[in-house]
Amino acid sequence: MISKVKNAMSNLVGGMMPHGHHHHNHHSGGGQNSGQEGLPHRFPYGRPDFLDLTPELLQYSTEHASRPVVTLKRGTRLPWGAGYAEAINAGKSMLNEDQASCEKLFVRKPSSKHRNSTLVDDNGDNTGIPLHFWGVFDGHAGSGAAIMASKLLHRIIRDGLGEICHLLENPNSAPPICLAKNGSPFQTEAKKGGTQDSGEDADAVCDASVRFHMEKVVSLESLVMGVIETAFKQMDDLIEKEKTSYAISGGCCALAVVYLMGKLYVANAGDSRAIIIRNNEVIPMTNEFTPESERQRLQYLGFLRPELLGNEFTHIEFPRRIQHSELGKKMLYRDHTMTGWAYKTIVEDDLKFPLIYGEGKKARVMATIGVTRGLGDHDLKVYNSNIYIKPFLSCVPEVKVYNLDENKHGPDDVLVMGTDGLWDVTTDKEVAEAVSNYLSRCDPSDPMRYTLAAQELLMRSRGVLKERGWRLPNEKLGSGDDITVFIIPLAGHESET
Amino acid sequence: MISKVKNAMSNLVGGMMPHGHHHHNHHSGGGQNSGQEGLPHRFPYGRPDFLDLTPELLQYSTEHASRPVVTLKRGTRLPWGAGYAEAINAGKSMLNEDQASCEKLFVRKPSSKHRNSTLVDDNGDNTGIPLHFWGVFDGHAGSGAAIMASKLLHRIIRDGLGEICHLLENPNSAPPICLAKNGSPFQTEAKKGGTQDSGEDADAVCDASVRFHMEKVVSLESLVMGVIETAFKQMDDLIEKEKTSYAISGGCCALAVVYLMGKLYVANAGDSRAIIIRNNEVIPMTNEFTPESERQRLQYLGFLRPELLGNEFTHIEFPRRIQHSELGKKMLYRDHTMTGWAYKTIVEDDLKFPLIYGEGKKARVMATIGVTRGLGDHDLKVYNSNIYIKPFLSCVPEVKVYNLDENKHGPDDVLVMGTDGLWDVTTDKEVAEAVSNYLSRCDPSDPMRYTLAAQELLMRSRGVLKERGWRLPNEKLGSGDDITVFIIPLAGHESET
Repeated sequence: MISKVKNAMSNLVGGMMPHGHHHHNHHSGGGQNSGQEGLPHRFPYGRPDFLDLTPELLQYSTEHASRPVVTLKRGTRLPWGAGYAEAINAGKSMLNEDQASCEKLFVRKPSSKHRNSTLVDDNGDNTGIPLHFWGVFDGHAGSGAAIMASKLLHRIIRDGLGEICHLLENPNSAPPICLAKNGSPFQTEAKKGGTQDSGEDADAVCDASVRFHMEKVVSLESLVMGVIETAFKQMDDLIEKEKTSYAISGGCCALAVVYLMGKLYVANAGDSRAIIIRNNEVIPMTNEFTPESERQRLQYLGFLRPELLGNEFTHIEFPRRIQHSELGKKMLYRDHTMTGWAYKTIVEDDLKFPLIYGEGKKARVMATIGVTRGLGDHDLKVYNSNIYIKPFLSCVPEVKVYNLDENKHGPDDVLVMGTDGLWDVTTDKEVAEAVSNYLSRCDPSDPMRYTLAAQELLMRSRGVLKERGWRLPNEKLGSGDDITVFIIPLAGHESET
Repeated sequence: MISKVKNAMSNLVGGMMPHGHHHHNHHSGGGQNSGQEGLPHRFPYGRPDFLDLTPELLQYSTEHASRPVVTLKRGTRLPWGAGYAEAINAGKSMLNEDQASCEKLFVRKPSSKHRNSTLVDDNGDNTGIPLHFWGVFDGHAGSGAAIMASKLLHRIIRDGLGEICHLLENPNSAPPICLAKNGSPFQTEAKKGGTQDSGEDADAVCDASVRFHMEKVVSLESLVMGVIETAFKQMDDLIEKEKTSYAISGGCCALAVVYLMGKLYVANAGDSRAIIIRNNEVIPMTNEFTPESERQRLQYLGFLRPELLGNEFTHIEFPRRIQHSELGKKMLYRDHTMTGWAYKTIVEDDLKFPLIYGEGKKARVMATIGVTRGLGDHDLKVYNSNIYIKPFLSCVPEVKVYNLDENKHGPDDVLVMGTDGLWDVTTDKEVAEAVSNYLSRCDPSDPMRYTLAAQELLMRSRGVLKERGWRLPNEKLGSGDDITVFIIPLAGHESET
């Protein structure tokens, strides 16, 4: 994520330096990581395990001058034969703040042995319901949160699904509304328990048959969605908790694709993006969460909880900063209820800086951050202030479901997921065309075809280095950001699950 | 709006009874209109002026047994030759709580004469920018708010547009960001006024050229949207203000269609609906705002401001009421951040009634109201409590724009707008088919064709009275609600504007 957080003091943070060579905050008053000096890193800096980089290659992958495209080695096979490629940014941070993970796991009932030690490895035990996971994590202000999420989020999801494993094993019966402590459905008898109704409610339901009538039926699918949403919150809480013992720098956008029992669940918190390409057509699987797309939610919070604005910001949006000489004049504005604009007479309070300011990729929350959902950022403050950004950020993803088994797919039908470095300079349609063209020219039996397509996509967005910077074939500026891409084929996975 | 507000005490409220015969609240503790006994009505009960009903016909229009379909008289012509039809409910309230308006107005600079007397009639002065208005107002718990909105909302919109009349007259230049008191663009000189920047902001804009670069360009269209959004708020404020002097019962959903300078602005606050039918295809122009569609906004407010829940409600949603015997068990829930469901251990606080409860047409906010946007309802409380509903309701519409001039329309291309009585039993597609079929069989030169089509639609949703109630041709239950429909032709209005 490029310059998504102002004040570049944290850009050079990472675990690559030997312990003891810790960074200084360039500004003592605010920013990330305050109080973390001297703590060990939770996970050392590195690239995804599946790349299997030697120390030499790891160093090579950080060359800002050449920005090498790093792909899967020939011979390495990711689940479903998915393709992968990445490249570092053009110099905005020393290390690649994108991270990625790809795992095949197994959902099992929590065993008594592991009840108090979650997040364990599968240790080669291949019993249970298979679960496939692909994630991209676009870090900002350091790579600590992104690395930690890439190591743990899939395990948290697996463990959450383990808790409802007995329900997943009966996919044809709707999940019970109420469970006893042992996990079995709990039924109260008719009439029993109706006495707590205090009489103020004409609709109070005192009768089991009426109650049944009033019950919402919750699908197994929405239970899986709930597990994924909850897992993102648990991941965020874990980062906060472990920050007391470890240096975990920055925050990250998180985009996760989960395959379980015939369905793909695409969960997005941030401005990464996933699309499905089917028959050369694009099916968008994510929305981006930015100061612009979440303006009204953020303004509403600022309106209801003005103390969070620290007397420095106003929840009202103006098209530009107001000058003191404009007091008493009328200026265009909009509040949390409005989509259109109207004029208001400027009062003293309007001279504060707008909570949401700027347009497009330059839009910022409290002049600080350009993305409104993700993990981490617990210490992030407005520069030189004690105003925390975190209350305005959400760690909850939007989850969309794609029923893989209900659709037919050919070998060129894929899901493409990538960080904003990819999408900022290449549209959905251009991505779809490039991938479809590339795959159709490729030997269908080449196990590298999806990785080669990912490499092709990556080159398209990065461009080549010319005198005037990284340029695309059309001479437009390429992406100077970190770029990470998975291409996941949608056909032919039945044999391995 | 049928049984959209619980506790039918206010259903028989209206201005039709001679003054002095005022209703009693059936419950002294809560509900609407408390303290309004003895106040005169703001407007007497009636049907839209353009129907020109005699007292006899007005009485006839309230026959619940026959539910006569009331349409425009032959010879009455609404702007653009729009068609109209309405029918009263099957008995849930004495009077028809739907209201409607249709007006041609003119947008002018506010004259010094009228500066302090807004909301005046046009008095036959046909200078200015023509403005067309169609509105449907679906009242609940009385018809006072709906009647008042049908009389005044269009004038508030016209007056709001009058304030920006000088900008509308120059449609090719973007609205200035800042206006002096006399309405002319206000420009501060370069550098001037930069001194108030207190230095805490690295991006502080001290230079006019940079400032210019940071300015958002706001379109005239979004300014018109802002006027309409603001007008709904002003209408709502006016109802609140005048309730101190008049009896204005209940609240209402408001759906307004505004035609100005080649564009249709469709503004919806509530669960009425508008669609455009073009070439037999449906273009939805509204979203409905209900406890289900706005669940997360309402839960978020309840989460941030728990005092609004009065210790009686919980912002967490459960699929049914929880019984005391279920304490300590696990139950499905979702909070304001979730779309999926998860299990939580039930604690004492979860025994409170859910803020959002029920499904579909039966979903309610605090067991009271089934719609979450609209005008009025300032006194509405949870039955037998002092908990106000109004903080959870929004009076702000969602505005969608349709560029009429940029599309070609035939005589069968129309906008259909109606209250939920129409749409509850007839889908968009069925409405489009019925209208298209009817119009294609109609003499294109018959000035009544759109009214006859509206009548046809209305009959389709009301059904006919059989032994087992109002039934549709397929024997399904017809709508027992008040029903109101406008059909607005989209072609051929150029000659009259």
